[in-house]
This record gives sequence, structure tokens and C-alpha cells, in this order.
Amino acid sequence: MTDISQELHVINVGLEGFYTELQEQNVPTVQVDWRPPAGGDVALIDKLARLQTPEVEEANAKTISRIRDSRPMWIDVQPALAAIPGMEGNALLHSGPPIDFGDMCDPQQRAVEAAAIFEGWAVDREGLLAKLRSGDIRLRPNYAYGSVGAMCGVISPSMQVIVTENAPYGNRSWSTFNEGKGNVIWMGTYDKGTIERLRWMRDVLAPSLRAALRTRNEGLDIFKIIAEGTLMGDEVHARSAACTLLLLRELTPMLLNAGVKRDVITRIVEFISQNNHSFLSLTLTACKTACDAAHGIPHSTVVTAMSRNGVNFALRVGGMKDDWFIAPTAPMDEAIYYSGYGPDDAAGDIGDSAIVETAGLGGMIIGAAPSISSFVGGSMGHSRQAMAAMRSICAGDNPAFAPGAVDFTPAPLGIDIRKVVRLGFTPIIDTGVLHKASGVGQIGTGIARAPMAAFIKALRAMPLPA
Amino acid sequence: MTDISQELHVINVGLEGFYTELQEQNVPTVQVDWRPPAGGDVALIDKLARLQTPEVEEANAKTISRIRDSRPMWIDVQPALAAIPGMEGNALLHSGPPIDFGDMCDPQQRAVEAAAIFEGWAVDREGLLAKLRSGDIRLRPNYAYGSVGAMCGVISPSMQVIVTENAPYGNRSWSTFNEGKGNVIWMGTYDKGTIERLRWMRDVLAPSLRAALRTRNEGLDIFKIIAEGTLMGDEVHARSAACTLLLLRELTPMLLNAGVKRDVITRIVEFISQNNHSFLSLTLTACKTACDAAHGIPHSTVVTAMSRNGVNFALRVGGMKDDWFIAPTAPMDEAIYYSGYGPDDAAGDIGDSAIVETAGLGGMIIGAAPSISSFVGGSMGHSRQAMAAMRSICAGDNPAFAPGAVDFTPAPLGIDIRKVVRLGFTPIIDTGVLHKASGVGQIGTGIARAPMAAFIKALRAMPLPA
Repeated sequence: MTDISQELHVINVGLEGFYTELQEQNVPTVQVDWRPPAGGDVALIDKLARLQTPEVEEANAKTISRIRDSRPMWIDVQPALAAIPGMEGNALLHSGPPIDFGDMCDPQQRAVEAAAIFEGWAVDREGLLAKLRSGDIRLRPNYAYGSVGAMCGVISPSMQVIVTENAPYGNRSWSTFNEGKGNVIWMGTYDKGTIERLRWMRDVLAPSLRAALRTRNEGLDIFKIIAEGTLMGDEVHARSAACTLLLLRELTPMLLNAGVKRDVITRIVEFISQNNHSFLSLTLTACKTACDAAHGIPHSTVVTAMSRNGVNFALRVGGMKDDWFIAPTAPMDEAIYYSGYGPDDAAGDIGDSAIVETAGLGGMIIGAAPSISSFVGGSMGHSRQAMAAMRSICAGDNPAFAPGAVDFTPAPLGIDIRKVVRLGFTPIIDTGVLHKASGVGQIGTGIARAPMAAFIKALRAMPLPA
Repeated sequence: MTDISQELHVINVGLEGFYTELQEQNVPTVQVDWRPPAGGDVALIDKLARLQTPEVEEANAKTISRIRDSRPMWIDVQPALAAIPGMEGNALLHSGPPIDFGDMCDPQQRAVEAAAIFEGWAVDREGLLAKLRSGDIRLRPNYAYGSVGAMCGVISPSMQVIVTENAPYGNRSWSTFNEGKGNVIWMGTYDKGTIERLRWMRDVLAPSLRAALRTRNEGLDIFKIIAEGTLMGDEVHARSAACTLLLLRELTPMLLNAGVKRDVITRIVEFISQNNHSFLSLTLTACKTACDAAHGIPHSTVVTAMSRNGVNFALRVGGMKDDWFIAPTAPMDEAIYYSGYGPDDAAGDIGDSAIVETAGLGGMIIGAAPSISSFVGGSMGHSRQAMAAMRSICAGDNPAFAPGAVDFTPAPLGIDIRKVVRLGFTPIIDTGVLHKASGVGQIGTGIARAPMAAFIKALRAMPLPA
């Protein structure tokens, strides 16, 4: 052993041969696109030059420091209708930008159908369609309310939701508890057992978790658990196995202290421990409250939300209060498919969960999760390169999340639309892939890329400092 | 991203400048000692040449395949006296080779004293010394009985022990459950609370765990949990945080199903979850049963046990049935000390826990635990180098334990005394460091090196194939 620990970090511009050689030597390297900035678009280059100001830099620094200073606490479990301000009693919330039922991808349609059946509003597709036509059921995007949903992301009024509050800022977000594997509406597939599980979650799981949370005054510190989890193989989007175990460690004594019945505790512990995504909804709400607290700082070019519905991708930017910039989702051509499936079978990229990457986790820290290095090439060297690439389009980083497996490199934080457009590549988003038509649910996993068109739209719309 | 994933792996012989340069470029490199084999000792070189035979290779392959095929199951909890065959009712077992009380290091003396008080055999040092002189209390090494103890490793007759059975081979090992942090006898320090905790472990914890285990027929598969843990930041010697969480996941429903009282379950869950070493004793017993199953194959030059008592280090070799080879422990000069302490304050390397490295875990897979890369230099590159060095003195590897953080490199397995002596370096052992005199307990952590003298003794004694 020796104490020499200097390392080369190379940013290679052009000349891909040299890049390849460095890669072979395992030197952390970023191959930066050699093309002219912004693809040579003169108007965009001009816009970029005008946005290179101290006001923007300060606004961006403030944006990411608000995310870093956030402390999202899981404080309660409540029925969606009671918890989510403004939600109507006949609304079904869904992931991604606003969309009509007929335009939704097949899995999201199925999830909406299951939710309508769960609410007792319909018994089949026909009944659902009639009520959608008559306006008795209305579809609304989660992002209009501050709620978030993984994959299809459907929330109906009587579903119970996690209530997460960002302690220093006081803002909240909501999401349903994760259903697990098999026939589950977040993956756009359901059967009779699915509806029964949703009822159990509403009638047994939720009241028990609520009682458990009441035993602990300030709730459960979500980022604290994530910080531990990122040292234990989780990037908290595709993989939340460690965070799920850490959640169990916290929850079990709380359930016992709350006087929840023994057989109920056993079932809850098994329900949570059998699903490595059990922690995911907590991550989503935490990231959402952090990004919402950071939204609305004039001149900020940092992305504060990304959201997809399988058809369209939407993002918003810190300095533009009420605007969402929408473009078609990118094809799922880099994902890893289960045997027998391929990109032609895939629905488009879907879920509000890209809020995870927006908050500097998931794909931003893919090196935290060695088990998914296959998403970006198959080795930790590839994961380091992916993180370096993400760092180059971000405004800063977050030392609170610093995965040990990549030598405690801090998480890239704050996707800067200027850097994305200038360098010509977009954030990667860790995700699952759904079948586009068969109702079979998940058919793969891997990365999706945010579509460049949405970033360009946002950049064009960005107001210039006075 | 690119699919080029070739990497340089360099074994550098001599010329340390080139080695240093490669290290700076983060190229996985092993600096191999350039000196003549076996330090130029002609008799040893001759012995090495004569041991280069197909019989030895076959025996070594058989040895490591027995370790790989082992499936240690935690099946029961019993009082030590009932569980450990041959243990006498007046015996105090300790880690490392046989040693008189007066020759023990200070922390092990304190641990023995605490155990005598716990048993009601003495109230102070004076009473203990009298009974040791009269033979009313006898000191015995764990290794004479097949039991194992971490650090000071003291087991007394009424302490309850984990019973682990190696399913395919039927052999067993035993260890006490880990006490945790603070004043604890495994770290050679105690007070009134320590004795109370030992009583609680005997009277409450042990019967509850026994009842829990009875709810599951075949017991708990220890290597299965370790395989998961090595993908979550544990090398299972210095760090068992993930395995401890995985243990909780298994145990909690078992405790609930066993009808253990609610407040007892709460206390047990908290006791286990507050101590990241809670899983350690299971690892020790599992590794011991695996190595014992592999012991006794004629001509095997693979080490099947390493054990230290703070003064002396002992090892045994697969092909030499009843012999232990003993040498003074190496100095703790590579450890990382808590503020205010240094190597001069340290007791010698201590504990039966080097069975972990013997079984191809701990220091052998230090890259599994990014949080302790500081033990070997501070980066994952250093950890990879350390693993490559360990691989070069091992007979094979174990794909069952393949840490993701080092691109699923299989664990080096089966320390070959021939390779150790030929290459001139010994295994690293992840360990804690105890104060040599003050009774303060742990003062550091890091790696110890097994003393070369023990390997040379073993090599000299190794019988030649006919």
C-alpha cells in the first residue's frame, strides 16, 4: 500500500482515439462533444452568451443551495383528497404533463381504469369512458398539485398518500405507497388481486403507518436515510434495496410502540421487505419538496422538475415560475429488456420520478449502485464517466450524497439548461420500461434520456437579466 | 457512453517508479516484491520447489471447493456449556492460541475478569487470580473446541451461544452474540452495565432468538445474507452494517411469529439495529464451519484457520491435521487511530475473527466496503490493488462473494502458504485496535498483517508428497 492517491481526471475535447486510450487505462474521462455549442444554432448561441451573467450564476447557486438545505420529513399518511390541496373528489391524478385519456399510453390507461374500479366509479373500460366523456371523472396531472407518482403515477381520492414536509421551508408533497411487484397499477397492469391489495393498503397499511408516525414527533428524515443508502448500493431510483432495509429498521419499533396488532405488523414488515422499491415513494416526495422549495428564483436556469407520461416529457426551470416545456419522450432504445422484448414493445418513458434526477440522485449518482452499472456500459469505470458527464451539465454538486463506490464523489446537482444545450447532451434518467400494449407491465429497465427539444424550448423562453 | 470496457491490469515487478506512475493513472496495479523468492532462503526455496506438485494443487483445489460448497445455517441458541462439546464447567474460553493469564494482553485479562464476575466465580481481580492458581477456573483457547470469539473472544459456560451448522458437512461452530459498543468485554472493557447487559443477553435475548429460530425449520442461511451484504457495502469483518439490516429483515417476522412479547421484540430490534457489528458473530461461526469442513485434506497448503490473542498469532494448514504454527503478532502500525492514540498505545492484533479472511472475506474483499478504503490507501483503486495482491497469495477465488463496487471481482479464497512465502507478503486482516493498558477499549481500526514467521514455520513443517 502507498499513500499516493493522486488521480488523473481528463476532459477530452475531440480526438476520440485519445479518449478511448484513456478509457482503456481506466482514467476517469469525459468525452465532450466536439461540435460547435448548441449544435451551431446562432440564435441559441446568442441566447447562451446573454445568459452568461452573474445574476444567473447567483440564482443558480441559490437554487441548488435550497435543494441542499432541504430536510424532507415523512410526517403523516392521509387520504389523498384530504391531504392534497385543490384535489377534486372526482379527479384521477396521473404522472407527466396533462393528457386526454385517448392519448395516454396503454399502461397509463390501464392504471386509470384500475383506479376508477378501486373507487367504485366504473366496473370496466366502457363505464370509465362514459364518465370521462360526461365529466363525472376528470384526469389531472400530479404536477398541477405538487403530488408525484412513480411510472403511471395514478392517485385517486380515497387512496392514502405519504405526506412529506420539507422542514426548513414548510412545503409538502404526496405520493401513494409503492405496491410492489406483479400486477400493480404503477406498472400499468391489474387484476382482482391488485384491487384487493389497494384496499388493504388503504384500510390496513395506511392507518398502521399513520399510527407509527404519531409515535415520533418530527417524523422520519428521508434524506438522512438516502445518505446512508447511497453508501450501501442504492442510487434510490432504480435501486432502493438498502433504503428499504433502513426504513424497516426505523419503522418496526414505531409499529410496535404504536400498538399495531402483531399479525398486521408481520404482514407490513413482509410487504415492505419483499419489495426493494418500498422506499421509492418516500424518495419521490422528498425530492419533490426539495425541488419545489428551490423553484421560482428569478434568472435561475436550473431545472426544478422533469416529468413524463409515456407520450410527452415536461420540464420546468427555476427562473420561469409557471411554465412547463413539453416535448415528445425520447425512445427507450438504451434500456435493457427482459428476454423476448425490445424497444419496439416499449411504451415511452413514463413517471414523475425524474424528480429524483432533478434533485441530484438516481442517474446523477449511478456510481452509487454498482449493480446497475450495466445501464451505462457495465463497469464502475463507465458509471464514473456517466457521473462526470452529468456533472458537466449541472450547476454544482451535493456533498450530502457522496457514494463510497466512486470514492465519495459528490452528487452532481442542478441540471443547467444552458450547459445541456451548449454541450449537446441531456440528463440520463434511471427507469423501468413498460409494455406499450399487452398489459404485461414491466418489460425492462435502464436509462432514458430527457429529450433535448424540451431544454431548447426552455432556453428560448428564458427571460434575459435586465 | 461507449461499450469499450477493456481495462489494463498490470503486475509490476521491480522498478517502483513505473508502479507509482501507473497508480497515479488509476490503473489497477500490483507491486510485486522484486526480491528473490522466499527472501533467498535456500532451504525454503528447495521446499517450495518440492511442493510444486499435482498432489498439492489437487489438495488445494479440494480445500477451497469445500469452503465454496459450505452452507452454514444459524440453527439454534444454547448455553455454551450445553452446546460446545468438551467444554468444562469451569472453563473460560478465549481467542487466539493457548496463553496463561499473566501473559495475556491487558484487554483480554479484563474480559476474562468480567466473565468470571458474570459467572459469579469472583468479584475482583484478586479472587480471579486465586481461582486461576488453584485450578478452579481454567483458561482454554476457543480453537481447541471449534468455537470462535471476536477480539478478546471470551466465552463462559452460562453465556448463550449462536449455534451454526454447515449443512452439507454437518460440522458446527459457536460464538456469543455481539455486545455492541461502549463498555463491552469483546473490546476488553467493562463496568456494572456490561455485566447487566450480559445477563439480559443470557436471560432475554437468547431465549427469544431461540424461539424465533424454532419458527423456521432449517434456520438462517448465513452465506446467503453475506452474499447480499457484499453488494451493499459490507466486507463483513470491519463492516457488517448491511448484513445487520438483512438480519433484522429476517428476524423481525420470526420474533413476531414466535410470540415473543412486544416490548422484548422492540428492545431486541433496537439492540440489533444500534450495532452495525450485530451480524459479526454469525459471520465468524459461518466462516469457522466452512474452514473446518475444508481442514484435513492431505497435502493441502491452504490455511484453514488464523487466530490471535494480542500476543501471539496462530495458523493451521489444511494438510497438517493437528498442528498450529505460532509466532508473535505483527505490530499494529498500519491501523488508523482515534484522535490522541497511536501504535505505542495498542495491544497486539487480537481475535479469532481472522477466520473471516481465511474464508475469503474481510480483508480479502476489502473493495466490497468503500467506506474502509482508507484502511489501504483511501481510494477504490487502492482497494482493488489490495484485492489483487491478496488474489496473488490465494489458491483460487469464490464467485459467490463478488462485490459490485469492484466490478464483481470474485473474492480471493484459500491463502496458500507457498505463495505467501514465495512472494514475501502475508494476508491483511481487517480489525479493531485495543488499548494495551488503560481499559479504554477500542482506540482504532484498520488492517493488521499476519506475521510471516508463522507461515515460514508452517512451510518448513509441511510434509512432502511421497
